[in-house]
Amino acid sequence: MSRERLYLYDTTLRDGQQTQGVQFSTAEKLKIAAALDALGVDYIEGGWPGANPTDSAFFDTVPATRATLTAFGMTKRAGRSAANDDVLAAVLNAGTGAVCIVGKTHEFHVETALGIGLDENLETIRDSVAHLVAQGREALFDAEHFFDGYRANPAYALDCLRAALEAGARWLVLCDTNGGTLPAEVHRIVTEVIAAGIPGNRLGIHTHNDTETAVAASLAAVEAGVRQIQGTLNGLGERCGNANLVSLIPTLMLKPPYRDQFEIGVTAEALEGLTRLSRMLDDILNRVPLKQLAYVGGSAFAHKAGLHASAILKNPATYEHIDPALVGNRRFVPMSNQAGQSNLRRRLAEAGLEVDPGDPALGRILEAVKAREAEGYSYDTAEASFELLARAELGRLPEFFEVKRYRVTVERRKNKRNRMVSLSEAVVVVKVDGEKKLSVSESMDETGSDRGPVNALSKALAKDLGRYQTAIEDMRLVDFKVRITQGGTEAVTRVIIDSEDGAGRRWSTVGVSANIVDASFEALLEAVRWKLIRDVGETP
Amino acid sequence: MSRERLYLYDTTLRDGQQTQGVQFSTAEKLKIAAALDALGVDYIEGGWPGANPTDSAFFDTVPATRATLTAFGMTKRAGRSAANDDVLAAVLNAGTGAVCIVGKTHEFHVETALGIGLDENLETIRDSVAHLVAQGREALFDAEHFFDGYRANPAYALDCLRAALEAGARWLVLCDTNGGTLPAEVHRIVTEVIAAGIPGNRLGIHTHNDTETAVAASLAAVEAGVRQIQGTLNGLGERCGNANLVSLIPTLMLKPPYRDQFEIGVTAEALEGLTRLSRMLDDILNRVPLKQLAYVGGSAFAHKAGLHASAILKNPATYEHIDPALVGNRRFVPMSNQAGQSNLRRRLAEAGLEVDPGDPALGRILEAVKAREAEGYSYDTAEASFELLARAELGRLPEFFEVKRYRVTVERRKNKRNRMVSLSEAVVVVKVDGEKKLSVSESMDETGSDRGPVNALSKALAKDLGRYQTAIEDMRLVDFKVRITQGGTEAVTRVIIDSEDGAGRRWSTVGVSANIVDASFEALLEAVRWKLIRDVGETP
Repeated sequence: MSRERLYLYDTTLRDGQQTQGVQFSTAEKLKIAAALDALGVDYIEGGWPGANPTDSAFFDTVPATRATLTAFGMTKRAGRSAANDDVLAAVLNAGTGAVCIVGKTHEFHVETALGIGLDENLETIRDSVAHLVAQGREALFDAEHFFDGYRANPAYALDCLRAALEAGARWLVLCDTNGGTLPAEVHRIVTEVIAAGIPGNRLGIHTHNDTETAVAASLAAVEAGVRQIQGTLNGLGERCGNANLVSLIPTLMLKPPYRDQFEIGVTAEALEGLTRLSRMLDDILNRVPLKQLAYVGGSAFAHKAGLHASAILKNPATYEHIDPALVGNRRFVPMSNQAGQSNLRRRLAEAGLEVDPGDPALGRILEAVKAREAEGYSYDTAEASFELLARAELGRLPEFFEVKRYRVTVERRKNKRNRMVSLSEAVVVVKVDGEKKLSVSESMDETGSDRGPVNALSKALAKDLGRYQTAIEDMRLVDFKVRITQGGTEAVTRVIIDSEDGAGRRWSTVGVSANIVDASFEALLEAVRWKLIRDVGETP
Repeated sequence: MSRERLYLYDTTLRDGQQTQGVQFSTAEKLKIAAALDALGVDYIEGGWPGANPTDSAFFDTVPATRATLTAFGMTKRAGRSAANDDVLAAVLNAGTGAVCIVGKTHEFHVETALGIGLDENLETIRDSVAHLVAQGREALFDAEHFFDGYRANPAYALDCLRAALEAGARWLVLCDTNGGTLPAEVHRIVTEVIAAGIPGNRLGIHTHNDTETAVAASLAAVEAGVRQIQGTLNGLGERCGNANLVSLIPTLMLKPPYRDQFEIGVTAEALEGLTRLSRMLDDILNRVPLKQLAYVGGSAFAHKAGLHASAILKNPATYEHIDPALVGNRRFVPMSNQAGQSNLRRRLAEAGLEVDPGDPALGRILEAVKAREAEGYSYDTAEASFELLARAELGRLPEFFEVKRYRVTVERRKNKRNRMVSLSEAVVVVKVDGEKKLSVSESMDETGSDRGPVNALSKALAKDLGRYQTAIEDMRLVDFKVRITQGGTEAVTRVIIDSEDGAGRRWSTVGVSANIVDASFEALLEAVRWKLIRDVGETP
């Protein structure tokens, strides 16, 4: 049975840029466009040429793409023809194969925002779209506030679509601009639009996540007959974001009935790069990736409940809706007091530690984990610290070096210009191969500002580890999380540190103490030890 | 027209606890239960009594609630009767009004996970539910993997439901345990279940967000006839989380057709507390609240696009799907102070600072808040620090004393018994009434253990403030939260300190710095200043 083609339209670089706190550079836009092209979307909306220097520079420098590069703009302004509108001209000057222009379809907005008559708005749409077509471009019409407009005046909203269609628009995109329309309503209205004579294969859907249903509303629109979906990577976008293509793509490819009815431009191989792509965008935005993201999140295939974890060991299909490898993600069976011995061996195996089922060390490791968790430690995410703890019980934890003592001082006082400034200084004393090494570092960074006591300690610890020094040179602290928790009856501080190295490894370690500096030092030390096991091996 | 009652079942304390990295203490569970009860959910699932000490302690100490407190467990184990199952007995011993037990409805799981025959599983369900009913409890049956089971063998899945129904279960909850079922499929299967004779008003829905459609799937189930929705606050839960009640509640109350067809137990007034409730949970979890959350996120009513922002000023309905005040959220228009000023005056009045509408200080305060927030400060909860900032702009911030400098040292080394121990020592130099005072304190508590550098600093700061000393004697630091956040382009540490005094006041202050000790000291200092304004007044 032949499947129908569904088209994906990515607007990460335009609507995604409306996210609070997001401001892409031209270089970042180019990097994202290349990744989208490799993924296999059909359209890449690059921005609004002429609206700001970044977007203009993007269109000036973007190399040829397999996807149709699209410039965004709006219908011509009142009181001039489309051919004489300089804003529209700037959009066309970007020279893209497709141009998408947004226009009004809701009578309230025509009157309130544009301040023109309903007929004049129809003429505006017609003239603007016809102008794009006359310039040889593929024309898309973004029908702003379409669902609200249709509810208010269905006949007029449909007239707006017909005006664009008759003027030659390839796609009419039904936009739920305010994000308030729920999936069942989207389904009903799309069904009525198609029944009114607008062909489904000329319709697109553009939803927002203001009710946490943008993905479902896009699917509902597809079920009702639209054949283009607009969305963004990781659901970036104004307010609560746009429909998340990172969730939609695997659903369309892997889930019935979609996978059997439709075909999209993404290959199974490209789908395996989806998790990496999602994380890359977070890297560019300097955001910590959300663990709960559908398909690609770090927790998406994490099985914490003891009953689930033991069933997963028998057969992954018991508690997984897809194989995580299909989207480039992986299964994770965390340790916690709710999980039993059944998943311990699996977790050890993942760390390269094969242990026989009957080994009494298993019981000791579980006891050690439980005792540690009672003190405030948590091994859900700190898998590197878990490995070190297990190695200690298995007698497989090498002693590369010994920390004899450390001291860190934070001082705040007035500088010469009478301003309060602070500075931290750390001394760490280690013994490596029988030799005592004293290292001292301060917390000042290149810009002259104080990065605090943990930074100073981290630098002093990594300053001279003798023959192990080369192995830790490419280590980098990438995240640092602190929380106050309960250790027995006292409040203690738990620090989780994420580290990275030149080989692309990323690992998490934990430290706990009533003293926050101490907790941080413990996590730092564990990070170094884990790295040395990887690069030096078990026998130093 | 009378509306039909829909029931809300919250499982934040049970399924929500399956979130990777989440481990509630008993005290936190009690706090969340009280908040859920105030919100107006119908059922609060508190955990699995007997499964771990925290859950057992919760049921032992939880006070009476308006909502039906519910204990979670599973059907009896094979080879014994429900009456002789000690695991089930522990669940019943919690003494809750309702008990929810999970059981199998998917033939594959009956055979793979339980290893029993299909008929024996029906008998297991019947005996277990009947036992709950015989003990006088309201019985709920969580039909695990129901949708997968129904797809594999609809007749058997229905038989499982009927077994529970006939044994007296009040609710049969259709669980999409693996989270892979899409909304249209949920709608179809629920419709068929009801057509097969199971009454919709005995059915509940329990979805997971593995395809980012848990909220929509819950709505689809309601449309098909179920009358109970299970979910969690902020969508906590195993893997990608459960259906998010924080999104579902406003949709059910504010959006057609739901608001016209259904009634839930949440009042319009309680709905106004929803944003605060969502943030409270993040506070407990020490998570940075997600700005993009539907309804309650910090960006949910933020209008970044220039065209949108100017239209919003003319009429908020142009780009907002609901009034943000209905859910206790606020509009955020980055480029304009117009919207901010009335909120600001209300907030100042709450701190006892009456300011005239035209006062230019209002603009200065808004600017100061904006500048501070860009550095990483947050005044959402730190209302005492907000008051101090406003007082500075209003010229109403008394200078009780001046901190000239401080120094804190953390040292870790071996003690006489060859054990590693740490000790912190702090020196604080203040000037009060022209007199310089040096105070030194260490971090050792009564038990001889080190409480860390912030403790030492706090003690040194509060040791001698001259004639103000009596006013701060009854101050106590009750909570301390640390978060790594973004200050401009750099990661900085934000510390929030909660303080309490003998008069029962409780206040929060904030400090931000790349140096965690510095950030803590700033928050400590603000706490002392706020207290002095309360007890000494504005003119020292």
